[in-house]
Amino acid sequence: MMGRVAAAGELPGTPKEEIDTPALLIDATAFEQNIGLGRELFLASGRAYRPHTKTHKSPLIARLQLENGAAGVCCAKLGEAEVMAAAGIGDVLITTPVVGQRKISRLIAIAGRGRVSVVADDRGNVDQLSAGAASAGITLAVLVEVDVGQGRCGVPPGRAGELARRIASSAGLTFEGLQGYNGAIQLLRDFHEREVQARASTERLLEAAESVEDAGLAIGCLTGGGTGTSALDIGLGGLTEIQPGSYVFMDATYRSIEWTAAKAPPPFRPALSLLATVVSRPARDRAIVDVGWKSASVDSGPPVLRDLADARFEFAGDEHGALRFDSGGCPLEVGSKVELDPSHCDTTVNLYDRYLVVREGTVESVWEISARGRTD
Amino acid sequence: MMGRVAAAGELPGTPKEEIDTPALLIDATAFEQNIGLGRELFLASGRAYRPHTKTHKSPLIARLQLENGAAGVCCAKLGEAEVMAAAGIGDVLITTPVVGQRKISRLIAIAGRGRVSVVADDRGNVDQLSAGAASAGITLAVLVEVDVGQGRCGVPPGRAGELARRIASSAGLTFEGLQGYNGAIQLLRDFHEREVQARASTERLLEAAESVEDAGLAIGCLTGGGTGTSALDIGLGGLTEIQPGSYVFMDATYRSIEWTAAKAPPPFRPALSLLATVVSRPARDRAIVDVGWKSASVDSGPPVLRDLADARFEFAGDEHGALRFDSGGCPLEVGSKVELDPSHCDTTVNLYDRYLVVREGTVESVWEISARGRTD
Repeated sequence: MMGRVAAAGELPGTPKEEIDTPALLIDATAFEQNIGLGRELFLASGRAYRPHTKTHKSPLIARLQLENGAAGVCCAKLGEAEVMAAAGIGDVLITTPVVGQRKISRLIAIAGRGRVSVVADDRGNVDQLSAGAASAGITLAVLVEVDVGQGRCGVPPGRAGELARRIASSAGLTFEGLQGYNGAIQLLRDFHEREVQARASTERLLEAAESVEDAGLAIGCLTGGGTGTSALDIGLGGLTEIQPGSYVFMDATYRSIEWTAAKAPPPFRPALSLLATVVSRPARDRAIVDVGWKSASVDSGPPVLRDLADARFEFAGDEHGALRFDSGGCPLEVGSKVELDPSHCDTTVNLYDRYLVVREGTVESVWEISARGRTD
Repeated sequence: MMGRVAAAGELPGTPKEEIDTPALLIDATAFEQNIGLGRELFLASGRAYRPHTKTHKSPLIARLQLENGAAGVCCAKLGEAEVMAAAGIGDVLITTPVVGQRKISRLIAIAGRGRVSVVADDRGNVDQLSAGAASAGITLAVLVEVDVGQGRCGVPPGRAGELARRIASSAGLTFEGLQGYNGAIQLLRDFHEREVQARASTERLLEAAESVEDAGLAIGCLTGGGTGTSALDIGLGGLTEIQPGSYVFMDATYRSIEWTAAKAPPPFRPALSLLATVVSRPARDRAIVDVGWKSASVDSGPPVLRDLADARFEFAGDEHGALRFDSGGCPLEVGSKVELDPSHCDTTVNLYDRYLVVREGTVESVWEISARGRTD
């Protein structure tokens, strides 16, 4: 109905302290370092890397990743892939099943424009994909989704060969390989525990690969892994392609995990933050800010205050957060700005329409989050 | 960067079972009944009602409420008010403080177009509002925000008169009245407990009113209350204006509270739902659907399955939910649609760009959620 009425504080050139809040900021320097470090680490591994756009929802960032050696991108949903394809991103893997006639028609429409591959774990879904692709006269690349331990989507490892054969023998489809992603272990804080689980996931994926080879098929690609297991996955040697997402931004939860056996923190820097303003100072030990459930995701806990070590953030409704200063008085005034690290970057990004990219204290550019909300 | 690529399944005329998911549905009949019942209950109370647009974020629904007797609307944030003002909604109260020079300039810009009032709880903020309004040559109506028990924003009741005087004596401002909203008690399940707390909140607001009268000022308006306390607030007699929001949609949490001393459920019907699709059937007792943290808010718990009494929804990441059938087998297939009641309507609505309005099993219209994400 209405176009957006732009807020004054988000134009390029605005000093950081004058940005209207709540706002989602990218620290340009940290972000560029993360992109560069990803290129270095992931390419040196000898594996392909296919970053996940579900983290950032931005074709512009996807293009940056491709310019930095990425083999293509992952999209969590068809809607996200439509946005990427419309922006000219030429190689997209959709990492969840695309189900139903209407969605398959949409999938085929974008598959005509570039290389689009998709995962499947169900015979009926494979048959529908085949019917759609064949009648459109195109070929769709399909990967078998394997449950490597998360208990979400995917066939058991031993049954991968059976579904792979069905794909390979279906008109309009080619069998591309296997996807095995264990989202549940990415954020295990303890390095050794995460290593044990990553090894178990790799073994399940290799068992699935064996089942495919027993079925007489070649495997083009073994794809999976995330930011949390990427260093491990490289060492374990199962995957031919890794799917890191959060490395571009990081978040408070990812920053808290151990990256190595020596318990080193992750080498990626916090590049995403929330800017909030104090709107009320009702008590000596409390400030109220303008960030609540609608501006910071809650699935992984509250966001973390960046420069106020003695204070903690508590959600106080849709539009408010309370900063509690347990050990003494609150130094903030009405109008003070505070910066927060999101607890979960993906779900926080999904609340905003744009990033404000800040360099040396000034908004340098505004990047649309074009695939925001495209969970369809 | 990119315009939205519309999904095929959301056009008017689409049968409900063919809608592409995740989708946010309004049941047209239940919604109209809620709007009508609100008119009846709230107008009969002899109090004005000023519904909260933070629930629905839609100027179209705001207009419907005005056509049904509402005195104006509430907006939680300036960004929301900008969208409403741009759509021609002529009487807006912003229920949180508008802080900082840039925001005050934006406030003044919309105050030129219609009647805009705002709350304040801080002297410095009042002085900035005054400077902005006076230099623009307009008059802003300001209400004192009173902490009636939530411990969020607001002055203590006894200090309301002092701030009211400052407003009344400031160039460019008129003192409008008091706002006292206790969000923390709206969802207390037990009717008697909620009644006790609503009474205490009313007493604090009346104490604040006394402090204003002692300061020699007349009070135009005592505004506050929400859907959960609306029936109580009407009986308690403190407020001259009530601010119900959720009554248009309801949600699983609101539906679970007792509306009367006889423990009657709320008279408003569930009018908002999420449509999901089963994308995987990995086990006998489990189905995976395409709704996760990015499609259903989690702040008030998981959404509730509407027609599957023996199953429960568990979040399984950004884009997935697991339906667990504890007592036996799962009757759903890949491609089956399921309908869910959101646990919290406001924060779930804020994830979507549009409502699909469904009547008699068919999409009748598509309503943009124009103020989605406008937390700024």
